[in-house]
Amino acid sequence: MPLNPDAVGATSDPVERSWTSKDCLLYAIGVGAGQLDPVNEELAFTTENSQDVPQQVLPTFAVIAGMAGMGAMSKAGTFDMTMMVHGEQGVRLYRPLPVEGTVRVTGKITGIYDKGSGGVIATASEAVDAMTGEPMFTTTASLFVRGEGGWGGDRGPSSSANAAPDRAPDHEVTYETRRDQTLVYRLSGDRNPLHSDPSFAALAGFDRPILHGLCTYGFTGRALLHTLCGSDPARFVSMDARFSKPVMPGDALTVKMWVDGTSAVFQTVRQDGDVVVDQGRCEFRS
Amino acid sequence: MPLNPDAVGATSDPVERSWTSKDCLLYAIGVGAGQLDPVNEELAFTTENSQDVPQQVLPTFAVIAGMAGMGAMSKAGTFDMTMMVHGEQGVRLYRPLPVEGTVRVTGKITGIYDKGSGGVIATASEAVDAMTGEPMFTTTASLFVRGEGGWGGDRGPSSSANAAPDRAPDHEVTYETRRDQTLVYRLSGDRNPLHSDPSFAALAGFDRPILHGLCTYGFTGRALLHTLCGSDPARFVSMDARFSKPVMPGDALTVKMWVDGTSAVFQTVRQDGDVVVDQGRCEFRS
Repeated sequence: MPLNPDAVGATSDPVERSWTSKDCLLYAIGVGAGQLDPVNEELAFTTENSQDVPQQVLPTFAVIAGMAGMGAMSKAGTFDMTMMVHGEQGVRLYRPLPVEGTVRVTGKITGIYDKGSGGVIATASEAVDAMTGEPMFTTTASLFVRGEGGWGGDRGPSSSANAAPDRAPDHEVTYETRRDQTLVYRLSGDRNPLHSDPSFAALAGFDRPILHGLCTYGFTGRALLHTLCGSDPARFVSMDARFSKPVMPGDALTVKMWVDGTSAVFQTVRQDGDVVVDQGRCEFRS
Repeated sequence: MPLNPDAVGATSDPVERSWTSKDCLLYAIGVGAGQLDPVNEELAFTTENSQDVPQQVLPTFAVIAGMAGMGAMSKAGTFDMTMMVHGEQGVRLYRPLPVEGTVRVTGKITGIYDKGSGGVIATASEAVDAMTGEPMFTTTASLFVRGEGGWGGDRGPSSSANAAPDRAPDHEVTYETRRDQTLVYRLSGDRNPLHSDPSFAALAGFDRPILHGLCTYGFTGRALLHTLCGSDPARFVSMDARFSKPVMPGDALTVKMWVDGTSAVFQTVRQDGDVVVDQGRCEFRS
């Protein structure tokens, strides 16, 4: 059995990860910031020298900086990485991300589940300020590994959490992605050719390269930030979501939000009505 | 007299400038590569890991790598840098640019001219491979400095060179720029807020931020490369052009080419018919 359920609790050695102001600007543009008209709506995230507009960092940039904790995956057993699909992604911020910084990231296996047709590896990465040791953010991810289930293990938490209520959403925001969106997004680190090379995408069974799941996640995070937090990263607490369908570059993404106090359930829906990000939950400060 | 005509011939100390594959990809996207549909037409310039498509570098990237030679400007006299406007830009490649490399760049003042209402400083930057000393490229630029003319000096070369012939162009290629084009382009180095901050642009008398002249130059270079050189940087020899009007992000740029053997005269024209790049000349290999 290639996945090892006894690996739950295993941690990776801490890894340092630094970023610059430019990394944050590039990420912001990769997830569509600045595409709104007028352009200056998102200047704080896309420029560092606009008058009276200090640079700020999109909260979802934490998934890039936190990627260093994914080293813990190597403790989960032996399996074919190409059979792995991103299932869920979460981010929780303890304070707004600085425009440049260094964190020390420790990854941990938090669960290994048996879904029958495959296995799920759940991880959490804790990032602390490398200088002060203060907690900065936690990212969580669950990865589905096709073909690696069926050992009669724990199925894990139910998938019915954060279901969309049976009423019209309180907010809807639509952003267009671009046909070449992935060409910018990939410069933030994920160079998987599934997202850029038509030949590679064809081998994987797609008509053309697909959008990075974390790019969709970033577009969704922008919608939550602007709608629920008045564009203020200090009011953004957490965001958890499940990837349910692929998105093609050029698709329009509509983020639907159902608010309850200082949290909201959300979904991201493609122009054809299919839900691409499901069971989302965002917590924010009022 | 703040411009010093005796500075002609002065050189800057050599400066080393390195670039990475990522720098080239980011530049390419900044000048619109990958925006064509289908996206894969320019994969060689926008990706480094597409199957059977080795990464290549847009010839106009030399203007970024060659910028280090602009230090020679400090020898031209004492003047207000904010009064300076980019007049002309040239690039000549001795071999295709590598996807990563280090050059040693020496800048030189090649001319100081008196245009009456202002002065012109002409510079040339010679870049050699830092390891081997072999010439890699030369970039030339002329900068117009408003208010610094009128000392009765040489007016410089005539402006009638490379005039568009009085016949229909042999080729026309139209590329759309985007409303947020400058947000990507500026990450290649030119962070002048004239191109991103609406407040700053308003102070300079523009309704909104304007496109970088060198971004227009890069769009134009792509059109020349694809049309005259079959998209092969090894066939691209040189490109010289004069900036004649500002371009707004979102404008469509039509590059008109008149071919004569292995050179072409070109113009870049805005959607309203105004010429924004004039008296262009491109040399190429057949």
